[in-house]
Amino acid sequence: MIDIAKSQRLILEATPVLGRESVPLIDALKRVLAQDIVVTEDIPAANISALDGYAVQQASLRGISKQDPARLKIIGESPAGKPCDAVVGVDEAVRIMTGGMMPEGADTVIKTENTMEDGGYMICHSAQKRGSGIRVRGESLKKGEIALYTGDIIRPLEIGALAKLRHAYVYVYRKPLVAILATGDELTDFHEPATPWKTMCSNLYALAAQVIDAGAIPLCLGIVQDNLKSQQEVLSEALRADVIITSGGSSKGKYDLVHKAFAALGMKTKFSSIFVKPGKPTIFGTIKNSMIFGLPGNSTAAMLSFEQFIRPALLKMMGHPNVSSASCGNDDMQYQSALFSQIDSFNYEQGGNKEHQMPSLVPLGRTLPGNGSHLIKQKQGAKTAPDLLKPIAGKTFGVKIAAH
Amino acid sequence: MIDIAKSQRLILEATPVLGRESVPLIDALKRVLAQDIVVTEDIPAANISALDGYAVQQASLRGISKQDPARLKIIGESPAGKPCDAVVGVDEAVRIMTGGMMPEGADTVIKTENTMEDGGYMICHSAQKRGSGIRVRGESLKKGEIALYTGDIIRPLEIGALAKLRHAYVYVYRKPLVAILATGDELTDFHEPATPWKTMCSNLYALAAQVIDAGAIPLCLGIVQDNLKSQQEVLSEALRADVIITSGGSSKGKYDLVHKAFAALGMKTKFSSIFVKPGKPTIFGTIKNSMIFGLPGNSTAAMLSFEQFIRPALLKMMGHPNVSSASCGNDDMQYQSALFSQIDSFNYEQGGNKEHQMPSLVPLGRTLPGNGSHLIKQKQGAKTAPDLLKPIAGKTFGVKIAAH
Repeated sequence: MIDIAKSQRLILEATPVLGRESVPLIDALKRVLAQDIVVTEDIPAANISALDGYAVQQASLRGISKQDPARLKIIGESPAGKPCDAVVGVDEAVRIMTGGMMPEGADTVIKTENTMEDGGYMICHSAQKRGSGIRVRGESLKKGEIALYTGDIIRPLEIGALAKLRHAYVYVYRKPLVAILATGDELTDFHEPATPWKTMCSNLYALAAQVIDAGAIPLCLGIVQDNLKSQQEVLSEALRADVIITSGGSSKGKYDLVHKAFAALGMKTKFSSIFVKPGKPTIFGTIKNSMIFGLPGNSTAAMLSFEQFIRPALLKMMGHPNVSSASCGNDDMQYQSALFSQIDSFNYEQGGNKEHQMPSLVPLGRTLPGNGSHLIKQKQGAKTAPDLLKPIAGKTFGVKIAAH
Repeated sequence: MIDIAKSQRLILEATPVLGRESVPLIDALKRVLAQDIVVTEDIPAANISALDGYAVQQASLRGISKQDPARLKIIGESPAGKPCDAVVGVDEAVRIMTGGMMPEGADTVIKTENTMEDGGYMICHSAQKRGSGIRVRGESLKKGEIALYTGDIIRPLEIGALAKLRHAYVYVYRKPLVAILATGDELTDFHEPATPWKTMCSNLYALAAQVIDAGAIPLCLGIVQDNLKSQQEVLSEALRADVIITSGGSSKGKYDLVHKAFAALGMKTKFSSIFVKPGKPTIFGTIKNSMIFGLPGNSTAAMLSFEQFIRPALLKMMGHPNVSSASCGNDDMQYQSALFSQIDSFNYEQGGNKEHQMPSLVPLGRTLPGNGSHLIKQKQGAKTAPDLLKPIAGKTFGVKIAAH
């Protein structure tokens, strides 16, 4: 018996960080930077004005006062976005815009609000500190500095920073391809008619959504019948994926062939059973370069196993540096599991998922609250998320390592 | 002066909830349900076994014991996914799999672990409660129940639930189209050469990323020169969008034409100035059915204004029921703004963004920590996020309503 943190570590030890790829800047959002970003040009690239006003020599303002204001000749203009060839001498001023280049000779900018114009002259009676009103070249970033680091998560902020640094494309870690298949003769899909003895393969869609939610790419291979040959065929087809997730048939029942199918493909099993309810029958191993996760068929169990074991691995593959924290970030999940157990779960009270070592961690309330509108929740008099959460809050998990 | 909550309310009052559209189930992830989901068939659709074992009449087990076990004739099998035509009488049993249909006559399932097989017979010496081991028809959901509500946010859990309920397509609220343009002769884009007097239009990319991050669709219209005619042309072209965001030229400087351009298109101005630093010059109004946001050109200011004013509006448009809380969910933003201010921001110390009523809320630290790896942060000896956050933590904001 080891706790969930240890079992996650076991998985993460077997998890590679994938290679990098170059993507258009905007597509890098929410991905992880796979290169250090070195500043190639000072920002700003020149001394520019931080405001609308007049560029002057601070010397021209010495000893001025209300009674005896400075009267400087306006010899030109430095609008934003254009070079400025004016040269400012004593008692001269250049009209300058926010972002405009400082003209030669000028060392100070006086904001418009503190001036008046009179004919071709600028009148000013309040002195200024030398250098005020100027953004100095390289003030924000100096050439050669590292602005962003490998491993940085690219949020809108970093998108802006990368654009500012003229990175139209950036290297990020590749997204894992995650094959998903569901086993079970009782399963049916949208294209098939509904019958009382079949149940929708909802895990395929829920798991695909979890894969997308984690930032990876789902490859939905659909339903595989409980028959060794077809399972082996689909699994070997699935081996081109970085990760393979199966749902159902992972326990030891008469029709549970997934173990055999995995074995036949030469899986190195890391563990084959977890003492957690729901989700005990979870298999983890590797075949060649693919990571294999055999999840239980129970919907709640499969989704929880994904969050606990697969999401952290996917995040590591995509270069996320703080996987544990990142993977715990998904608070919704507990509430989700609570709600999902109401949509479809075996009845643990009646000993459904056999051989469980622990009481159910999933509440079995009957009411279905709207997850969005509190109004609706009140109207329905349903439990609020916190209530539904309690039973699951204090998790204790364990993993049994398969002898091998 | 009103606080930020009031200014957000002002915007939200003017924000419509958009219409609904039907999308493939998996594409509904992270969107908001625009229909109540009524259960059309009981789940499970029949009485089925919750475990692998034997379906029997509980009466057959009366008074059994270790010494005097029950010996029941196995008359058939009910595997998962197939109808079962066997009829179970007294002292008879049907081998049944998890999910298998309960045969007529049987009222109890005995788990395999509590039995032995002997020839064609099943031996069992532990009694069972009547009805144990069975998932009763409609136990999870009854026909006619509402499983999910309009306004529910569709997470992987709801994807699974909707699949279980056979919704291959669902109605969700439409995503707003958000036109983004940047004004300023000092701006340059990737396809143009870098010069010392130009600066990259990074706001276009940062804002597009924020729009995507909020779940909406960006329409990047690029840079517009500081010239009334071209601004009006682009703006009127942009009016087919649900939201128009401009960056730059929203203050009252000589070259700030956005006010005029908006006015010429008949904008109903709700407010034109906010007493917050950075971000004071933020314009909000409507033209026909489009919401117009004129953001300042300063990168930090523009991104913060987006988070404070535009994100909540986009969320409401997409049907999110708890916009305020949802919009405050983005904790990263403060740290982002701190980091971004280091990438490119005017120097507030030197009175950059003129006329600000409040001291800078944005720290101007020089070091750029990696946002991901703490390791890197330590190595660089950079400030950690919390440090960078402090100056921005206790926000106070206000909005000046334009007289109209």
